[in-house]
Amino acid sequence: MPNPTIKTDIALEAKKASRKKFEDVFARIRDELIENFVAENMPKDAIEWYRRSLDFNVPGGKLNRGMSVVDSVAILRGRPLSDDEYFKAALLGWCIELLQAFFLVSDDMMDQSITRRGQPCWYRLEGIGNIAINDSFMLEGAIYHLLKKHFRQESYYVDLLDLFQEITYKTEMGQLVDLITAPEDSVDLNKFSLDKHRFIVRYKTAYYSFYLPVALAMYMCHVPQSYVQAGKTIRPYSLANDILIPLGEYFQVQDDYLDYSGTPEQIGKIGTDIVDNKCSWCVNVALAHATPAQRAVLDENYGRKDSAKEAKVKALFAEIGIPKLYEAYEEDAYKRIIGLIETIPEQGDGSSVEGTVVKREVFKSFLDKIYKRTK
Amino acid sequence: MPNPTIKTDIALEAKKASRKKFEDVFARIRDELIENFVAENMPKDAIEWYRRSLDFNVPGGKLNRGMSVVDSVAILRGRPLSDDEYFKAALLGWCIELLQAFFLVSDDMMDQSITRRGQPCWYRLEGIGNIAINDSFMLEGAIYHLLKKHFRQESYYVDLLDLFQEITYKTEMGQLVDLITAPEDSVDLNKFSLDKHRFIVRYKTAYYSFYLPVALAMYMCHVPQSYVQAGKTIRPYSLANDILIPLGEYFQVQDDYLDYSGTPEQIGKIGTDIVDNKCSWCVNVALAHATPAQRAVLDENYGRKDSAKEAKVKALFAEIGIPKLYEAYEEDAYKRIIGLIETIPEQGDGSSVEGTVVKREVFKSFLDKIYKRTK
Repeated sequence: MPNPTIKTDIALEAKKASRKKFEDVFARIRDELIENFVAENMPKDAIEWYRRSLDFNVPGGKLNRGMSVVDSVAILRGRPLSDDEYFKAALLGWCIELLQAFFLVSDDMMDQSITRRGQPCWYRLEGIGNIAINDSFMLEGAIYHLLKKHFRQESYYVDLLDLFQEITYKTEMGQLVDLITAPEDSVDLNKFSLDKHRFIVRYKTAYYSFYLPVALAMYMCHVPQSYVQAGKTIRPYSLANDILIPLGEYFQVQDDYLDYSGTPEQIGKIGTDIVDNKCSWCVNVALAHATPAQRAVLDENYGRKDSAKEAKVKALFAEIGIPKLYEAYEEDAYKRIIGLIETIPEQGDGSSVEGTVVKREVFKSFLDKIYKRTK
Repeated sequence: MPNPTIKTDIALEAKKASRKKFEDVFARIRDELIENFVAENMPKDAIEWYRRSLDFNVPGGKLNRGMSVVDSVAILRGRPLSDDEYFKAALLGWCIELLQAFFLVSDDMMDQSITRRGQPCWYRLEGIGNIAINDSFMLEGAIYHLLKKHFRQESYYVDLLDLFQEITYKTEMGQLVDLITAPEDSVDLNKFSLDKHRFIVRYKTAYYSFYLPVALAMYMCHVPQSYVQAGKTIRPYSLANDILIPLGEYFQVQDDYLDYSGTPEQIGKIGTDIVDNKCSWCVNVALAHATPAQRAVLDENYGRKDSAKEAKVKALFAEIGIPKLYEAYEEDAYKRIIGLIETIPEQGDGSSVEGTVVKREVFKSFLDKIYKRTK
């Protein structure tokens, strides 16, 4: 009989190795960006500044978004990637990480955050301050420099540009709604609703975290905008969108729920959504179920920098039954997304289709990583 | 004999009318951007927020950059534009104005400026603050939404995207060098040099203000990347770049000089470059010519919020002869740029060339607007 501990160790080692391989690509990408600045005759201190910003802000996260481009390309190709294919897929992955770095550097300034990934936020470092605004722009700018350098000759180059731009714009829309719905210093629960929550999580998180990596992989594998299979017109990007946006929503609901219910040992941080007046799934469900008396408790205690008030909100969440409601949400979301994945035509039917078609496994691998996660 | 006053009045009326026509396009563009937000199901308060940001930040400037796209297209076409051509050229022009709004909203935050165009800076309005960072992103995002909507079918669409991205990145590079060379709160004239000044003005200003409008007009008129004329390979975009970047540099040197020498009646504002520790052409020329004693005066007095110290710097500029040096610079720049314009092959030779070729008049019209301006 196989020893499950050994199996887990092997899986863990493989995961570590694949992370290491992906991380190693970053050094090459950073060097290319720096070489370009040298070629543009930038003064030395500015080149060093940019190098430091890239090294500080881009690697060091979980890298799930970036690595999922590589994973998705491997699934779509159905075989191990050549070195060149790996590099190009990883580069697209790092472009998502650059996009995220652009968002995080600026979000931290807008939220006046103190730390990020266990270190001080970039804008809080000595001598940086508001220059971090322009640094965030230059993280975004790097994406297009890299795409042009490595993909300009590809037939799908323009699709990559359109995709990055549309998703950047959508993420900014989500960020705007989040910022004006849930300002940290002014609590107004009338602004909250499950609809607002859905808009924020879809726009601010799901598009760039879930749809973007898969769509990039699909373009790289020449998946067409539409094709006919067994007499039916298939629109793969639209299908992918219709699965991955709900999947991303489910992921963020989990995140919101874990912020409330997870222990620091589990989630690796102390949840602060309640004291920070976040437009979280939990508070929106609570608002939808609250009696007038319970609503008054929320109005008086939510979003206050006061641990006694936070405890009252947590007690109310328990009273309303948020854990049970979450369990039901999770089961429903899982079934719903499985159902969506099953709308993708089976591979066997596609023999007459030229080029790569979209595969259920791409989406299942995402869903499996997420379902019933506790961290 | 014609009455010169009447002639000036007519020219002024024509200029006003052409500005009005260009301004009128903005309402349509803003409405398209808002309609898209409605279609995305953005909450009402967020839609109103964006509309207010667009109206506050985009129109209201001099609009020279935007209108010069329209003027350049008209010169290249060599005939009045149809309504559709006018709209498309104006839309490209407004995309430059959106790019500039993106830069100005964020620059004002980085510089902690108080007013812009005679009103408070956007980030200083009640309830806005750091959300202005995301607002600046959404001004940039609008560019790509508009380009996609109106130019996606054009053969040169991808060139428009590449152009906007490259020039945005270059402008950000220029802004970084400016920010770390000339911080308002820490004077170190060792960081200044005419080379640094040239880098900053080219990257921060010349690319987006001079090269971008003309290159956009050229793409819209299907000017090719290269063509052969009388046995010689002509690269029109490279030619345009080689003329317009020095032209933009000359424009910014003028701007720097007028900040020092212009009266408030002339330039419509009070020059603050000396007290703000700006890396201006004047101080760099002064540094290049200063004796050790003069250099000590600069070190002690430049970049201080003190009008007595400012007066000492101005006296030193006069002593070093900045006005004479500027006069010589201007004559040299003018001749040099005329010489560059004359490297453009004459129209007559181009009979065998298909499509629109670049024309000297595009550049001359820019130079004429700038030469010996006093405001």
